Amino acid sequence: MKILSVNAGSSSLKFQLLQMPEEIEISSGLVERIGNKNAEFTLKFNGNKQVLKDLVVLDHSVAVDLVIKGLLQNKVIQSLDEIDGVGHRVVQGGELFKDSVVIDDDVVIKIASLNDLAPLHNPANIIGINAFRKALPNVIQVAVFDTTFHQTMPKENFLYGVPYEWYEKHGVRKYGFHGTSHQYVSQLAHQRLNKENTKIIVAHIGNGASLTAVLNGKSIDTSMGLTPLEGFPMGTRSGNVDPAIFQLMQQKEGYSLEKTLNELNKSSGYLGISGISHDSRDIVQAAEAGNERAQLAIDIQAKRIADYIASYYVLLGGLDALVFTAGIGENAKEVREAVCKRVEVLGIKIDAELNNSRGDKEISRKDSLVKVWVIPTNEEVMIARDVIRLQKHN
Amino acid sequence: MKILSVNAGSSSLKFQLLQMPEEIEISSGLVERIGNKNAEFTLKFNGNKQVLKDLVVLDHSVAVDLVIKGLLQNKVIQSLDEIDGVGHRVVQGGELFKDSVVIDDDVVIKIASLNDLAPLHNPANIIGINAFRKALPNVIQVAVFDTTFHQTMPKENFLYGVPYEWYEKHGVRKYGFHGTSHQYVSQLAHQRLNKENTKIIVAHIGNGASLTAVLNGKSIDTSMGLTPLEGFPMGTRSGNVDPAIFQLMQQKEGYSLEKTLNELNKSSGYLGISGISHDSRDIVQAAEAGNERAQLAIDIQAKRIADYIASYYVLLGGLDALVFTAGIGENAKEVREAVCKRVEVLGIKIDAELNNSRGDKEISRKDSLVKVWVIPTNEEVMIARDVIRLQKHN
Repeated sequence: MKILSVNAGSSSLKFQLLQMPEEIEISSGLVERIGNKNAEFTLKFNGNKQVLKDLVVLDHSVAVDLVIKGLLQNKVIQSLDEIDGVGHRVVQGGELFKDSVVIDDDVVIKIASLNDLAPLHNPANIIGINAFRKALPNVIQVAVFDTTFHQTMPKENFLYGVPYEWYEKHGVRKYGFHGTSHQYVSQLAHQRLNKENTKIIVAHIGNGASLTAVLNGKSIDTSMGLTPLEGFPMGTRSGNVDPAIFQLMQQKEGYSLEKTLNELNKSSGYLGISGISHDSRDIVQAAEAGNERAQLAIDIQAKRIADYIASYYVLLGGLDALVFTAGIGENAKEVREAVCKRVEVLGIKIDAELNNSRGDKEISRKDSLVKVWVIPTNEEVMIARDVIRLQKHN
Repeated sequence: MKILSVNAGSSSLKFQLLQMPEEIEISSGLVERIGNKNAEFTLKFNGNKQVLKDLVVLDHSVAVDLVIKGLLQNKVIQSLDEIDGVGHRVVQGGELFKDSVVIDDDVVIKIASLNDLAPLHNPANIIGINAFRKALPNVIQVAVFDTTFHQTMPKENFLYGVPYEWYEKHGVRKYGFHGTSHQYVSQLAHQRLNKENTKIIVAHIGNGASLTAVLNGKSIDTSMGLTPLEGFPMGTRSGNVDPAIFQLMQQKEGYSLEKTLNELNKSSGYLGISGISHDSRDIVQAAEAGNERAQLAIDIQAKRIADYIASYYVLLGGLDALVFTAGIGENAKEVREAVCKRVEVLGIKIDAELNNSRGDKEISRKDSLVKVWVIPTNEEVMIARDVIRLQKHN
C-alpha cells in the first residue's frame, strides 16, 4: 500500500511516498518558490535525485501536478490508482481536533476557522489539501495536526495567566506543536524502556524547536504555546520574552506590533544573537573559531533548554529518558553536550564518545540515572500511519 | 541616627522612619490619591494610627510637606535636623547603576534616562526624589534600585534570544526587580546556613512576585525581566505569555498594543484567571468554597513557580534553602503548600503544622534535603542600611 505524506508551506510543497505498513520510503521531493517563475522541483527515487530549475509554478495546484507527473514519468508509480491515501500535515488543530481526521468539506472549513491561531501556517496547509483533493478526488485524504498529541495537557498547564474570557472567546491557550514528532519519538522511547508509567522528555531541536514532557505516552506539557514562537530560542525565533518588549521597540524604533512580532519570528534566536546565521552548523563552527556571540547563542539556547528539562523533570516526578531528535538534536553533538552538562545534577550523564557517533543510539553513561537517546524523528511515517488507521475505520 | 525610607508611586508616597543602626521603626505612613482632592494621609507612630481624609494634595511636594508636618506636629521628631538621610526606592537602575548611589542632579538625569525601561515606575520615583530634595536640601539622599542586586547575572542568563542590537542600542535584556527584598532575605538565609557557597532560592510572592536564584550571596537568575511583567502569574500580572498574543487580541478584539499590555499588567494573574479578585486571601477563600476558577488561579501560579524552582535548582547545581517572603509568601500557607507539594521530587518537604504557624520560621521537615524558611522581608531597612553605608563614604 502506498501513502503520500504532504507538508504544504506558503511557497513550498514537501512530500514523501511511503510503502506501508512496511514504512519504507519509495520517493520524496520538494517544490520550492511556488508563486514564482524560478520555482524548483527536487525528486528523489531509487537512489536518484532529479532537480528541475526555473519552472513557472504559479500556485500549489501546478506544484501538485508537477509532483504527480514526476512520479508517473519516472515510473515511481505506474498509475495514480497506486496511491491509496494522502496524509496532510496541518499545524493548528485547536481544540476542534483531538485526533487526526478524514478530510471532507466540513473539515476544511473547520481548519480555516483556526487560521487566526496559526496565520503563518494553516492557510498554506489548506491550499495543499485543496490541491490534492482536486488531483486525487477518489483517494482518502487525512489531516494530521501538530497539536493533537498535546491535547492531553491538563488545564493548569495549558492556560496562561490572562483573563479567562480570552480562552473562552478566542482560544488563547498553549497548544504546543511538533506533535507528530514528539509522539513518534516518545512511542519508541516508551517501547524501549519496556516498563509502566514511563517519564520521558523529548527535545525536538530543529530550526523550529520544542520540548515535551510525556507521562506514560501522553503529553502533559510542552514549550511551544499559542503559536510556535513560544519556548526557548530557535534558529530564527526568540522563544519567550518579556511581553513589554513590544512597547519598548515601538518607542525606540517606531516598530509596529507586526514588525516586532516578525522580528521575533524571523530575525531572532541563533540568527539574532549571533548576527551570523540561523543554521546551527554555522553557529557551532563560528563558536569553535572563537566568535563570542556565536558561543553566546549556543549558551543562551542550552540554558533555556536546561530550564525546561528541569521543570519537566519536576512535573513528571522524575525522569526515565531524555531523547534528542530533529535536525539539530540528531546531528549537533555540541548542542547535546551543552544541554546535558547543565542538567548533570539531575543524574543525567552522557558519554563523550557515544555522543560523538551518529544515528539512532544511546549516549548516556552506564552510571547515568536517566537514559539519554538520540532517536531520529519521522513525521512522514507518523502521518502515513494515521492515514491507514483512519482508512480502516472509514 | 534617623533615616527615612521612601517609596514614591505615581499617586502615592510611602515612607518609614527608622532608628539606625538599630533598625527599629519609629514611624511609618502613606499618602494616597495624590493629585486628587480626596487624598488620604495615614501616619503610624508610638502605637498610634492617625488617618486624615479628604485632603487636597495636588502633587508630591504637598505630600512631602504633609509627612514632614505630621512628624513634627506629633513630636515624632523635634526638628528636621534629626533626619540624617533619605533613601529612595527606584525601580529601574538599568546597567547604569551597579550599586546604590548618592543623589545629585546628574544621578536624577541618569534615572530619567531609564524612564522608557520602566514607564510605570521611574517617573514617579523621580517626582518623590525631587520633592524630598527640595524639602530637605541639606540631607544626604540616596537612590536604592530594585535592579542592582541582579546586576551580577551572567550574560547568558540575562539576554533574550532577540537581535543583539536591541540589547546594545536599547538595553533590551532581563533586569529583574525586588532586588532589595531578594538581597535582604537571601543575606539572612545565607547567615543561617552558616556555610560556604550557599545555594538559595528566594520566592518573593506579593501582589507583584518574583523568584531569584542566589549563589553564595549573588543573584544569578530571576524571573522578572525587562519589566516586572515577566515571570509567573501574579495578583494582576500575567507573567510569560506567547508574544503572538498581541496579534491575536488585535485581530479578535481590536486591541492596540497598549491595550493588550495594559490588560496583561492590570487585568491578568489571579484577577484574570479567577474573575474574582487580585487578592490571594479572596482567592484562597473562594477556592476553599469550591470555586473552580479560583482553584485554577492557585494551581496555575503554583505550577509556574514550581517550574522556576526546578530551573533554579539545576542552575545552582542543588539547593540549600528555599525561602518564602513578602505578603503572600509570608502569610498564605495554602500557596506555600501548593508550591512545595509540586517540588517534593527535589527533596523539598514541608511540615503541615509548621507551615500553619506565623512569623519568621523554618517550615521544612527534618528529613527534607532542603531547608524551607519563611523570612519576612524588609525593604525599608535595606534602603536605610544603604543610606548609612554611602553616608560613610561620602
